[in-house]
Amino acid sequence: MNDTICALATPQGGAISVIRISGEKAIEYVSHIFTPKKGKPLAERKTHTVAFGDISTDGKEVLDEVLVTIMRTPHSYTGEDSVEISCHASSYITQQVLLALLDMGARQAAPGEFTMRAFMNGKMDLSRAEAVADLIASTSRASHRLAMNQLKGGFSNELGKLRDKLLKLTTLMELELDFSEEDVTFADREELSTLCNEVEAVMRRLADSFSVGNAVKNGVPVAIVGETNTGKSTLLNALLREDRAIVSDISGTTRDTVEGMMTIGGITYRFIDTAGVRETDDIVEQMGIERTLEQLRKSSIAIWLIDPTAQAEDIEELAKKLLPMCDGKKLAVLINKCDIVENDIIEKVKEWSRGLVEKYACDAEWDTSDLWAISAREGTNMDRLEEFLVRSAAIPAISAEDIVVTNARHYEALIRALENIQEVQTGLAGGLPGDLVSEPLRAAINNLSEILGEMTTDEVLGNIFANFCIGK
Amino acid sequence: MNDTICALATPQGGAISVIRISGEKAIEYVSHIFTPKKGKPLAERKTHTVAFGDISTDGKEVLDEVLVTIMRTPHSYTGEDSVEISCHASSYITQQVLLALLDMGARQAAPGEFTMRAFMNGKMDLSRAEAVADLIASTSRASHRLAMNQLKGGFSNELGKLRDKLLKLTTLMELELDFSEEDVTFADREELSTLCNEVEAVMRRLADSFSVGNAVKNGVPVAIVGETNTGKSTLLNALLREDRAIVSDISGTTRDTVEGMMTIGGITYRFIDTAGVRETDDIVEQMGIERTLEQLRKSSIAIWLIDPTAQAEDIEELAKKLLPMCDGKKLAVLINKCDIVENDIIEKVKEWSRGLVEKYACDAEWDTSDLWAISAREGTNMDRLEEFLVRSAAIPAISAEDIVVTNARHYEALIRALENIQEVQTGLAGGLPGDLVSEPLRAAINNLSEILGEMTTDEVLGNIFANFCIGK
Repeated sequence: MNDTICALATPQGGAISVIRISGEKAIEYVSHIFTPKKGKPLAERKTHTVAFGDISTDGKEVLDEVLVTIMRTPHSYTGEDSVEISCHASSYITQQVLLALLDMGARQAAPGEFTMRAFMNGKMDLSRAEAVADLIASTSRASHRLAMNQLKGGFSNELGKLRDKLLKLTTLMELELDFSEEDVTFADREELSTLCNEVEAVMRRLADSFSVGNAVKNGVPVAIVGETNTGKSTLLNALLREDRAIVSDISGTTRDTVEGMMTIGGITYRFIDTAGVRETDDIVEQMGIERTLEQLRKSSIAIWLIDPTAQAEDIEELAKKLLPMCDGKKLAVLINKCDIVENDIIEKVKEWSRGLVEKYACDAEWDTSDLWAISAREGTNMDRLEEFLVRSAAIPAISAEDIVVTNARHYEALIRALENIQEVQTGLAGGLPGDLVSEPLRAAINNLSEILGEMTTDEVLGNIFANFCIGK
Repeated sequence: MNDTICALATPQGGAISVIRISGEKAIEYVSHIFTPKKGKPLAERKTHTVAFGDISTDGKEVLDEVLVTIMRTPHSYTGEDSVEISCHASSYITQQVLLALLDMGARQAAPGEFTMRAFMNGKMDLSRAEAVADLIASTSRASHRLAMNQLKGGFSNELGKLRDKLLKLTTLMELELDFSEEDVTFADREELSTLCNEVEAVMRRLADSFSVGNAVKNGVPVAIVGETNTGKSTLLNALLREDRAIVSDISGTTRDTVEGMMTIGGITYRFIDTAGVRETDDIVEQMGIERTLEQLRKSSIAIWLIDPTAQAEDIEELAKKLLPMCDGKKLAVLINKCDIVENDIIEKVKEWSRGLVEKYACDAEWDTSDLWAISAREGTNMDRLEEFLVRSAAIPAISAEDIVVTNARHYEALIRALENIQEVQTGLAGGLPGDLVSEPLRAAINNLSEILGEMTTDEVLGNIFANFCIGK
């Protein structure tokens, strides 16, 4: 923790690249390769000032003209002396600067290490540190708001309140224990029970919010399935309004699962375009089909796209395979190519496919109105699809004060704490002695403390920050 | 030119995003959405200082905690009041900040507009401004050095000296013209001729340097060709040491031309992996073959990869098609799969393919030693390939003082100026009167001035900066 770390904080490309350095020797290292065009040397400059000058890694040739920002301890993100070098976004330049820093003794930062240092130096608790990664990943108003609420400490405060209540419970229990030999019951068991129920209700609400939080953060998964050459890629492109998947006239072109993220009505969807499902000897194609079924399993909304010009037996073959896997999922059935197929044929295909859904997808969440004709190529009736998606996602609006669990680690710790509390409740109801009830109570407190990072092992910390990007 | 422009200067992704704002109202606009955590408001802060605080685009909810740097006119890149907002790299956050700036009256910057303003405000001449884009695109020591030399003004100085000489020539010519009625020849024709030859020699050296400059800047194009399933993708991957092209066991997997850039011995190569060439009915595959031939035409080095386990007639079929297109190109013939094919078979294939090269590629730059066995999968004899590539690129080392033309616009202007000078030389040699000789002389000066941007139309400027990235 005492060494000086450095990393590129911006991706390759663009106009500007930013290199971050943090640690005791940050200013010293940069002073060796940077000369301001005028004014004082870097070491004598005040915190939160910017110097314009030359970077030279060999002491002779100028590598780049850069802006260097210094932020002195404790007034920086990490709490340590920090420097940011803003240079021209050339891969050669950034590489040379990083190599020079490493040469002097700096170390390449691990993913999230700047934020981990902020946590270690007491600038933020663990749940807030984790929100930084979510904030960076946020792409919609909802996911941004959830991350910002967490970063502002709303979730931490809520957990703090819960813990205070649990500590009060523990104190009452222990008072009882201290006097147990005298067979005196200080704690009013009624009061303990009420407090316990309150805590359980809050925990349950938080744990329940995870399904919404997870959908907001990672996007609602939507699988687009259908036989080969139905126009699935075209549909995806029409939705994404950009060419992300290859569209061609040859059957089986889309071999890889191309995912596209898109925000409709403030909700982020993760679209999964799948390889065409057909009987085939092609190994690559066969792998694609297995992935299709796997993707369908993971999604909460399925769009079945039908090509009315395809062979009826092929469509039915597919329906047999895919529709039974739509149990409990929201399903829409779209008859494609209404721009080139005559209306009476479309109507017949509608009628017939309705029968297939009723036969094979009896447990899907499907309404007869969720079956209509579109033209993916012309964009016909795509608004109806957007409306279906918003309705099916069923994500409530999130206010600036709402506390929603978005992190799987937090969710798991909450679930464990909930189990502990239920054990306490059972114990209290059954009239168990205080020492038996106080054990799960302590476990619940520990589980909450883990979320805030007050009792976290290096391994857990390592796992958390490994999911950050480098440079943050 | 008087409005305030804004743009994202870093690509999506990474830890930090930087938004740049430049123009009269830059500080005012940012003041509306930014509140420092402590200290003076932005408008009262000194140039080259950094403030930490909250961004709020609706005046209520905090969007992000950011660092804001201000640089006041004329001490900024553009010469105007400039602000840089360094925020968390969320697409939602950057979008909201940009929307808020646009709402207040800022305009989305066009590509290169910050640098164009630096040029317009006299911070740098046009050739130096163009070097900024090259500097950003530089990926190797050589391309970086060329861009840096140009940015430091070496090329501008050289052009300045040339122009001074041409102006001296003009003055001498015009002196002659002024007194032409008196039939006096002031200018020593001998002296004029010598000066002219000097200028021509320098211009020719500069123009000649473009072939090197272009290869350094854009990479030396290398085509990897061979029949389907020879292991071209594997070879490319072995060279790039990363999985850029799909490698599979099914013939014809690589349909798109995947290019990979790689630096060997300080020289950048642009590798072109091509679709397998075979007779086929597959439309996508057929398109791939046409692209292969096209790519081969454009490359200066060709690598012919042979699968010794393939049908001899297929290989010969390919040789007939491809080898005649290798005229004047450096050619290497590699027998792949030496890890699984027995040595005496490899030797036979070597002998036989040598015959094919001698028959079909008689005008390629090929030596019998440029034929050897490799294993792309195991990486066997890849060092020999690297040695071949360095030798074949034949790019001289570039010093920190070398002036090399890397820009097609500069090259074209130089070629025009050279033609002008040759016209002057012919005129002088033929004893033409001064007024006839002075016309191409003026044209030459104008052509050089165009490079420096002293007489450039808006259209030319527009074209130049359109090739920049947004945010620079």
